[in-house]
Amino acid sequence: MSDLQTILDGIHEELSPRRGEGKVATYIPELAKVDPRKFGMAIAAVDGSTYRAGDAEEPFSIQSISKVFMLTLALGKAGEGIWTRVGREPSGSAFNSIVQLEHEAGIPRNPFINAGAIAVTDIVMAGHAPREAIGELLRFVRYLADDDTITIDDKVAKSESQTGYRNAALANFMRAYGNLTHPVEHVLGVYFHQCALAMSCVQLAKAGLFLAARGGNPLTGHNVVSARRAKRINALMLTCGHYDGSGDFAYRVGLPGKSGVGGGILAVAPGIGSIAVWSPGLNKVGNSQLGSIALEMLAARTGWSVFGA
Amino acid sequence: MSDLQTILDGIHEELSPRRGEGKVATYIPELAKVDPRKFGMAIAAVDGSTYRAGDAEEPFSIQSISKVFMLTLALGKAGEGIWTRVGREPSGSAFNSIVQLEHEAGIPRNPFINAGAIAVTDIVMAGHAPREAIGELLRFVRYLADDDTITIDDKVAKSESQTGYRNAALANFMRAYGNLTHPVEHVLGVYFHQCALAMSCVQLAKAGLFLAARGGNPLTGHNVVSARRAKRINALMLTCGHYDGSGDFAYRVGLPGKSGVGGGILAVAPGIGSIAVWSPGLNKVGNSQLGSIALEMLAARTGWSVFGA
Amino acid sequence: MSDLQTILDGIHEELSPRRGEGKVATYIPELAKVDPRKFGMAIAAVDGSTYRAGDAEEPFSIQSISKVFMLTLALGKAGEGIWTRVGREPSGSAFNSIVQLEHEAGIPRNPFINAGAIAVTDIVMAGHAPREAIGELLRFVRYLADDDTITIDDKVAKSESQTGYRNAALANFMRAYGNLTHPVEHVLGVYFHQCALAMSCVQLAKAGLFLAARGGNPLTGHNVVSARRAKRINALMLTCGHYDGSGDFAYRVGLPGKSGVGGGILAVAPGIGSIAVWSPGLNKVGNSQLGSIALEMLAARTGWSVFGA
Amino acid sequence: MSDLQTILDGIHEELSPRRGEGKVATYIPELAKVDPRKFGMAIAAVDGSTYRAGDAEEPFSIQSISKVFMLTLALGKAGEGIWTRVGREPSGSAFNSIVQLEHEAGIPRNPFINAGAIAVTDIVMAGHAPREAIGELLRFVRYLADDDTITIDDKVAKSESQTGYRNAALANFMRAYGNLTHPVEHVLGVYFHQCALAMSCVQLAKAGLFLAARGGNPLTGHNVVSARRAKRINALMLTCGHYDGSGDFAYRVGLPGKSGVGGGILAVAPGIGSIAVWSPGLNKVGNSQLGSIALEMLAARTGWSVFGA
Repeated sequence: MSDLQTILDGIHEELSPRRGEGKVATYIPELAKVDPRKFGMAIAAVDGSTYRAGDAEEPFSIQSISKVFMLTLALGKAGEGIWTRVGREPSGSAFNSIVQLEHEAGIPRNPFINAGAIAVTDIVMAGHAPREAIGELLRFVRYLADDDTITIDDKVAKSESQTGYRNAALANFMRAYGNLTHPVEHVLGVYFHQCALAMSCVQLAKAGLFLAARGGNPLTGHNVVSARRAKRINALMLTCGHYDGSGDFAYRVGLPGKSGVGGGILAVAPGIGSIAVWSPGLNKVGNSQLGSIALEMLAARTGWSVFGA
Repeated sequence: MSDLQTILDGIHEELSPRRGEGKVATYIPELAKVDPRKFGMAIAAVDGSTYRAGDAEEPFSIQSISKVFMLTLALGKAGEGIWTRVGREPSGSAFNSIVQLEHEAGIPRNPFINAGAIAVTDIVMAGHAPREAIGELLRFVRYLADDDTITIDDKVAKSESQTGYRNAALANFMRAYGNLTHPVEHVLGVYFHQCALAMSCVQLAKAGLFLAARGGNPLTGHNVVSARRAKRINALMLTCGHYDGSGDFAYRVGLPGKSGVGGGILAVAPGIGSIAVWSPGLNKVGNSQLGSIALEMLAARTGWSVFGA
Repeated sequence: MSDLQTILDGIHEELSPRRGEGKVATYIPELAKVDPRKFGMAIAAVDGSTYRAGDAEEPFSIQSISKVFMLTLALGKAGEGIWTRVGREPSGSAFNSIVQLEHEAGIPRNPFINAGAIAVTDIVMAGHAPREAIGELLRFVRYLADDDTITIDDKVAKSESQTGYRNAALANFMRAYGNLTHPVEHVLGVYFHQCALAMSCVQLAKAGLFLAARGGNPLTGHNVVSARRAKRINALMLTCGHYDGSGDFAYRVGLPGKSGVGGGILAVAPGIGSIAVWSPGLNKVGNSQLGSIALEMLAARTGWSVFGA
Repeated sequence: MSDLQTILDGIHEELSPRRGEGKVATYIPELAKVDPRKFGMAIAAVDGSTYRAGDAEEPFSIQSISKVFMLTLALGKAGEGIWTRVGREPSGSAFNSIVQLEHEAGIPRNPFINAGAIAVTDIVMAGHAPREAIGELLRFVRYLADDDTITIDDKVAKSESQTGYRNAALANFMRAYGNLTHPVEHVLGVYFHQCALAMSCVQLAKAGLFLAARGGNPLTGHNVVSARRAKRINALMLTCGHYDGSGDFAYRVGLPGKSGVGGGILAVAPGIGSIAVWSPGLNKVGNSQLGSIALEMLAARTGWSVFGA
């Protein structure tokens, strides 16, 4: 893969003039302060090599990308039993919609919309105090990325919790249906902290590498999940990872991915590697505008796609 | 792939006792007459070999699987321009729901729900009389499968049109929004005939092979679509091919697929082959119950999955 | 009521400068041709006296106001049994919404939204050819108004049927749920003709007088319905008569009323009289803008309101 | 009205064998403890006379009936300006639905569904600490009923707040849209206390009498609101007072009314009097089953109806 770095550099260079496109998320005050011209990319390949371009080593708020790691934890803890509390279908609506939740009696459509992630958080919290659950996630992500410098940005977590009325609505609603077992404030506390995980593209690509490598991490030799589970998480990322832009992402990029409103996207090329991009400006459906384009270019130039060569 | 036949036979044998499970679709009277114990499977591999088990050579009503072929025709005719008239996102609701259509002003969510397929039909009809459009589809499918014996079952087409009030509602609704250019009855006439295509598992697997083989048909040497378009159609099948069970199918089977209420499913293993199964009993979300299970077993035993080895 | 004429004249004069306000309905081409500056008012009092102002004797397309007369016919024919096929609750959405119909399995919310009126039409048609049903309605309205010059405007009826895709969607949808017993085109034919009834304010006020007069017509001495039924129809007009503006109309005017997109409104002051206004420009929720204001002024100046003196 | 007592006694006697019908609300634990066989009725006439039957003097939890009093307070405080924050249209859905709130961007449909009442509470709270707002309401209701023994049942208030997740969801949701200006917990605190007002049928009938008497209270001589405002509140009660059973109540009873899940209903016969009934068992749409029937009988026997004699 000697020319993978060349491809990455090329994409970065071509897109650099467009930095600043899209709209930075403003509903979390702390996120609004981010420089909209940031743009980083990193790849962690299954052969252990890594590639980077632009602001690839600067930590940013991964936001909803953390839902992938929480889901992995929940599956580890409760196995396939979690699917009684959250579905596996694309939502066909916005990431924070409450409508569907009412029609389906408090069972969120999938673990990658906010409501679903809140249910997943509740599952991970079983037997834990809130602080412990946050600690468990942090340890897990550090273990995945083999990097103990990863932290949670408390300012962002606080910023979220102060404006998180909609998530509070979702949580209370699920609790009304009995699909939340811990106190609402506790679950939201953990949820807001997971969203505030700060990671660089390089850290993120490494942390997601197990999904490309049959569930194991080639960098550390750790077995994270079974090959079967890795495939299943990838399937969920592909069908549900980009809110109401999931179909479009699959059409254009053809890789499982998960985006966050911080402007990051984690994508997986099974058997090849894990890719992280970051550019804060979002498109209309709430995914990183430049990040989506960068991944589309990468997929086109490498031929990476789960849907054929 | 010498043991592929063994795997197929094994699955067929194991599932045979469960033939008759699920509910045969009854809203199209002619479909209700089908023997619920039918069960066939076929694989067409990119190396030109084919495999079959059970009732693999008996034609059945492919119903919505025809949406894949119509989409391919429409893309050939109007290119990426078709996406102004139909979306590419999973619907998050039942296959014949009209609710979404109202919320999104007559633009169906994707080409694989009924409303979307009706819009696609309207696109394919451009410059054609209804009869010609049906002829074009039939010729196309025969060309794909390299089999001139494929026909349209007029009894089924008539049976559909007599009970197709819901589809008539969808078509009129889109016409009200200006998203239908031909007379409603003409579009429905073509639509009902495409649904009435009768094909065997073997024919269907062959007809879908181009999707597994970079857009070309290894059996005939014909180039059907570009490799890029084949990938994109696969992406749509994966995210939208099983109505509100698409996420679940991706999770369990991990292959692009399209189901029909006749009990057929066409699945694609990119770079490997195309698989068709048929068993008339449907599960709760309207997909072949045994067919889904058979594909899950096949994927598990062969390791075929777009989401990793 | 000697000064009732003075009040009517005053309102007409005050509002005359605002003639032309609002938007004339354009989706029925024939309606778009109407002079937007038309403005008429008429009152038929229970004591037999009548009052008029402006264009009170010029026939206009009463459109949905006809739903009141069809409902009266249906109740006469099938009694309270009709409520298994149509509800009695405000819809909380636009007059031609199809969303609710899906959520409630083909049972329209009330007889005054299009779907409900189509179901009512189907009920009235029992045992009739379409032409006979139309004839029955015409005879009924002439009998109510004691005026044989009332006609149906065939141009408008034709204009409706050519653009009535949305109504065709509603009708097919209900038929899909089994809530339509006659062929869709027949029902729509009758429906489009009832909407095309042409009546002047004076004729309309007279035709609605039975609702203000305990079910009888003081002008002719005919008993139309029981006092109880008159009250019930008034109740439906109050809660459901102005689509998604029913609450607002009750709040401002305080009288049962039914509007039509032709710009007419029929209102009822129980025990006092029946009022018809006409001005083609519509407000945002599809009711006559000037007509609503005129009725609000009339109610304020006369003290007529069902909600207190 | 010498025979009004006879009518009341007759209804009470006839319905007594049916006491216990319907389902007592259980989602507020404290309410579930109420004896389902309680059944009381009271009338306060504009001439100052009062009538009672059964358990008319036993206080019960008036729950949503308090929304009428809070609306009156809010209108007194902020006038017609409140209609920018809450609508005036029937909701067409259940009393605690959140779906509509999302479709209409945080503006509840009317003041008599929970979301609307929460917004109204926020308006009443302007310039008040929560405790003061509760005190203001209590003073207002005592003033209306001319009865200083009326209290708030703290056990019920506490019981509500412990299970009020759905209301917490509604409040957080509105706050997310900026349609709540006070802290969510404060607004909910006041809201839960208003619902916990305990009043007897006699007290309730007296408290509602101003709505029947042109805004003034004949018992005390106090002017509560203008005649115009009384009419308008009545209009809202008629179109929106019974959740998704409002149309049916108007059809059967024909009087403005407001129900509560405690089994109480307050109805208004403009110019005549105010009626309160109480029977804890609820019908399918959440209104007192026996109470609704009792009011239907009363309206039929007295001829009271706003829709005609």
